[in-house]
Amino acid sequence: MRENTDMTVAEHAPHRTPGAAPRGGSPVVPTRGPLRPLGMAEAALTGGPWAALQRTNATASLDHCERWMERVGWLANFDRVAEGTTGGDRPGWCFSDSEVYKLLEALAWEHGRTGDPRHEAAIRRLTTRIGRAQDPDGYLNTCFGHPGQPPRYSDLEFGHELYCTGHLLQAAVARLRTAGEDALVALARRAADHVCAVFGPRGLPGICGHPEIEVGLAELGRALDEPRYLAQARLFLDRRGHRTLKDIPLGRAYFQDDIPVRQAVAWRGHAVRALYLSAAAVDIAVEHRDRELLDAIERQWTRTVARRTHLTGGMGSRHQDEGFGEDWELPPDRAYCETCAGVASVMVSWRLFLATGRVRYADLMERTFYNVIAASPRSDGRAFFYANPLQQRVAGEPSDDDAVSPRAEGGTRAAWFDVSCCPTNVARTLATWHTCLAAAGQDGLTLLQYAPAEIRTVLGDGRALGLETETGYPYDGLVTVRVAQAPPGRVRLRLRIPAWAGGAELEEGGRRRPVAPGWAVVDRELAAGEEIRLRLPLAPRFTWPDPRIDALRGCVAVERGPLVYCAESVHLPDGAALDGLAVDTSVAPVADTEPGGGDGGDGGRVRVRALLTSPGGPGPEPAWPYGGAAETGGTGGEPAALTLTPYYRWAESGPTAMRVWLPAAPGA
Amino acid sequence: MRENTDMTVAEHAPHRTPGAAPRGGSPVVPTRGPLRPLGMAEAALTGGPWAALQRTNATASLDHCERWMERVGWLANFDRVAEGTTGGDRPGWCFSDSEVYKLLEALAWEHGRTGDPRHEAAIRRLTTRIGRAQDPDGYLNTCFGHPGQPPRYSDLEFGHELYCTGHLLQAAVARLRTAGEDALVALARRAADHVCAVFGPRGLPGICGHPEIEVGLAELGRALDEPRYLAQARLFLDRRGHRTLKDIPLGRAYFQDDIPVRQAVAWRGHAVRALYLSAAAVDIAVEHRDRELLDAIERQWTRTVARRTHLTGGMGSRHQDEGFGEDWELPPDRAYCETCAGVASVMVSWRLFLATGRVRYADLMERTFYNVIAASPRSDGRAFFYANPLQQRVAGEPSDDDAVSPRAEGGTRAAWFDVSCCPTNVARTLATWHTCLAAAGQDGLTLLQYAPAEIRTVLGDGRALGLETETGYPYDGLVTVRVAQAPPGRVRLRLRIPAWAGGAELEEGGRRRPVAPGWAVVDRELAAGEEIRLRLPLAPRFTWPDPRIDALRGCVAVERGPLVYCAESVHLPDGAALDGLAVDTSVAPVADTEPGGGDGGDGGRVRVRALLTSPGGPGPEPAWPYGGAAETGGTGGEPAALTLTPYYRWAESGPTAMRVWLPAAPGA
Repeated sequence: MRENTDMTVAEHAPHRTPGAAPRGGSPVVPTRGPLRPLGMAEAALTGGPWAALQRTNATASLDHCERWMERVGWLANFDRVAEGTTGGDRPGWCFSDSEVYKLLEALAWEHGRTGDPRHEAAIRRLTTRIGRAQDPDGYLNTCFGHPGQPPRYSDLEFGHELYCTGHLLQAAVARLRTAGEDALVALARRAADHVCAVFGPRGLPGICGHPEIEVGLAELGRALDEPRYLAQARLFLDRRGHRTLKDIPLGRAYFQDDIPVRQAVAWRGHAVRALYLSAAAVDIAVEHRDRELLDAIERQWTRTVARRTHLTGGMGSRHQDEGFGEDWELPPDRAYCETCAGVASVMVSWRLFLATGRVRYADLMERTFYNVIAASPRSDGRAFFYANPLQQRVAGEPSDDDAVSPRAEGGTRAAWFDVSCCPTNVARTLATWHTCLAAAGQDGLTLLQYAPAEIRTVLGDGRALGLETETGYPYDGLVTVRVAQAPPGRVRLRLRIPAWAGGAELEEGGRRRPVAPGWAVVDRELAAGEEIRLRLPLAPRFTWPDPRIDALRGCVAVERGPLVYCAESVHLPDGAALDGLAVDTSVAPVADTEPGGGDGGDGGRVRVRALLTSPGGPGPEPAWPYGGAAETGGTGGEPAALTLTPYYRWAESGPTAMRVWLPAAPGA
Repeated sequence: MRENTDMTVAEHAPHRTPGAAPRGGSPVVPTRGPLRPLGMAEAALTGGPWAALQRTNATASLDHCERWMERVGWLANFDRVAEGTTGGDRPGWCFSDSEVYKLLEALAWEHGRTGDPRHEAAIRRLTTRIGRAQDPDGYLNTCFGHPGQPPRYSDLEFGHELYCTGHLLQAAVARLRTAGEDALVALARRAADHVCAVFGPRGLPGICGHPEIEVGLAELGRALDEPRYLAQARLFLDRRGHRTLKDIPLGRAYFQDDIPVRQAVAWRGHAVRALYLSAAAVDIAVEHRDRELLDAIERQWTRTVARRTHLTGGMGSRHQDEGFGEDWELPPDRAYCETCAGVASVMVSWRLFLATGRVRYADLMERTFYNVIAASPRSDGRAFFYANPLQQRVAGEPSDDDAVSPRAEGGTRAAWFDVSCCPTNVARTLATWHTCLAAAGQDGLTLLQYAPAEIRTVLGDGRALGLETETGYPYDGLVTVRVAQAPPGRVRLRLRIPAWAGGAELEEGGRRRPVAPGWAVVDRELAAGEEIRLRLPLAPRFTWPDPRIDALRGCVAVERGPLVYCAESVHLPDGAALDGLAVDTSVAPVADTEPGGGDGGDGGRVRVRALLTSPGGPGPEPAWPYGGAAETGGTGGEPAALTLTPYYRWAESGPTAMRVWLPAAPGA
């Protein structure tokens, strides 16, 4: 069965059945829709790369982030406001408060996942310091509105006050759903009430230059069942696009104030802004049964994924404005693909999936999980990529783990950034990753991501279902789903077959059958202990770009399952250069026979045949690089095996030049 | 004879002979070198596109710039300082004073060229207003150092104070050399003395974030024979590269403070900064007979032209920092190629040519003149391109001649910019363009650029020489050089044969012979009235990129003589799109038979055979633009004639998509 395009929110009544609440909480809990997310307590990872990422996040990254925020003074900013000693010389950018809130959100989810008392202590520690800085009327920001600082809301374009508040609200949602009402929830409620009072229908008609308050208000509104917050989110959304923010050199498209969200055809401007706004728009569309609004976001997703998205799922082609470029503007070397834009893209796709049930959203999530989000953290969880280009011409600088990186360039994972939005965004995403493994429906479960895991859930009709999955995915294509707890009666089990997985097979009920991309469906009574086996084809494959993508003309990429691969200069033979290679596409790429590949146990490498010599080697320098004869790379080279690394692990062995898109040898 | 690589400054004694001074003045007057520039009064354009550009500049652009600077308050900034009413809310960027100085420089040269009393009046008018704002100690800046403003030199990274002063000094050089000492020269002298006092060997050890003071001090030092100014320029140069400026997110390479100029291997960072600095370095090298320094700049030129320069001669690949990117990073769509960087590139190449006599510098000047500088002004001289990309995916907005453009994007020539550096930079360049037509040597003349012109000069040995050139270049390859005044004895006449001009012929002394790129030499007695005819091959040609330029893989460009051509969407047949075309390179491009081409008399068009249909047309939208099969553009199309426009005239017929690099049909 292919994806069901008719499953849209407009047809669905609110989730009101016993099984409808995600047990243990989840970042996104729509009140209606064809499917609901799993709660933190309904699923657990039992192995594989995502379990490792989640563990490293819990044991290293969260502490790492708190220490850095203390070191650079972003935490002390709250103390100084509380003590009345703050002023114009405050350390950090005006949005540094939001990093503390994102850390709090990550801590809250992580504590919800494991109950680790150290995380509880951190939450309380941070909440106390934050709370002391809140003004009596609920306003909370360490950069504006106090002696020596600019007045509140005096710079809506770039002040980020509402943006910071939005992240505070998301942190409160995490706390509320994992631990119930507490001091953090109380102060977030006061902050939200303040926002509604100041910016409500009879208040200031402004919006924030950086969308985020909308998604924060919408989810807090859902979590607290407080329609005022949802209404305020909708008001902000409807106000945007009417050019109330000042024009800037980058244009009002930078903050999506150029066109109302319902009229836009594609995402444009600053990628994270565009995506946070769209995530909120889906929430609002779902809660208000606003089909037109949902259609608008689906349309923008469709167009953007077709024309403005990199192979990795990365979004944002321009460094200048951290933004989307024009259609087909997808340069591998200057691809910005901010880690945060990857997080935000997943936020939008997850909401769209829950609203519509369309498989394509889960497909893009997987691509982005593996090739953007997993790429960011270093294996020790103490350094992060900010930008995720698809080509690095010159190896980055070795990382200095004791320094703040002033730059957001690719090539080097940095311990901390002057603008350090990405580490905490990765942290909150990893802490909740397992809630995207599957989604529960009225009479069944839809498996979306494949990893070793246990799922214990209650279907919409109230029946309990337990599954255990075992797999070496993404390096082994066999996914075994064991029924640990079978409910009485028919169960509609669906397994996502990724778009790239032509030739997949499902083995269940004693037979084996081919399953096409979309959904593989098992719709029958299940028996406890029975196994359903999905076999996804993981042979490495060549991928070619649409000819309208000028920057990729004549190039080919290698993918394997959900993974994008890349060539790294550190793995080239002596004398060969990434500039000079050309891949022989007449010979299929081959996966390393050893799954572990000597690469830490989870990293399979792939080999292609390539011509590796000239002109990237030390050949003669052209006086002028344009001439009267067509020349192609690699023509003088000898065929050799070129080893490719999974993109998400690039630069793990140190600074290196890298390229995902490889020139294809002519005539092959 | 090929270029003579041995002619370098170190071998040359100072120009001290009667003919050594450029009559009428010239922006660059080295005191030694193999060749000296022509003075304003030694050459005059008598027709052709450059005469038209010069005339439009004189009659429209100069007045246009003054009116806009009045309108936006940049001129009144000087009045307010004089009146003591300035403060923190001053209009314009901190570098707006420099625009006034560049306008003054352009006015001074233009007045030197024609003696137009309106320009004299404008110079006096502006000088009076500027002079009243000068502080008693010589400091002159409307943005710093007065009540309500930041202190002097409190922001060396971005304050641009010394940068502004440098442009003041260049304006004073123009005035001094065309009219002698006057109020402008006097106030510039006081400003230069102030700089030497504050930043001298025992003063502040700082440098300006934007190089320019160096080239201003060096030339004023030469013009006034004041070694202190040259020494100060050298001091600034030697201080740079030692990381005394603060680190910034873009890195210290942005303002060339990362590496000492003598150690750098290529230009990097902000293009205009890198090039202004290098222009000063050549001046300093020549005056101090500093071979090492000259070699360093030649080395940087060589590497940058080989790997970091666009086909148009445009420099600067990145919008983010208006800067050079990495080697081979030459994206046509995001090429920044700032007009000012074209001006600055010509400044460097001209100085290198005068110091070394190497033909390659004059070649690059011609390329840049035609394809960057001439591209900027609209034909009426009242709107300008700031950025000069080689591809425009989406047509720019129609220009609003009554508005200040906040953006430096390509696609629309704007009447004025928020940062309006380019119009005045073009103006000063056009006013002196004819001084680059030729250079005088000890016993001969070297013709560098081809245009209808009269030249009356005195050679280094004191003999007078007069030439008249007639040509329809760059649309007709015949250049006729008539000897109007023949000196006694042998004369060594050299004509530049551009690197692209394989197959050129020279007809002189009754015979016709092939001449190779480099120099065509006539070394004999000349007779008054005799004609020397150079025939340059102007058949359109295909040009291919070096395979290491990833962004141009599989593409071809069309050039004709010094002109780069482009396809504009406004000239495509209905239904065809620039995205979908593919050029059949098996069929040679053809020039329009009518030289005028219905294009204003000087615009020849070129036709190529191309496949014009799908996939750029309204074909099916891919859901995901990466797939399992290689596809190339234009495969479904019918061959048709595609008309190309000279790049420098693009968007003259209104907003349009455009591309210089055209996908080549496979297998052709």
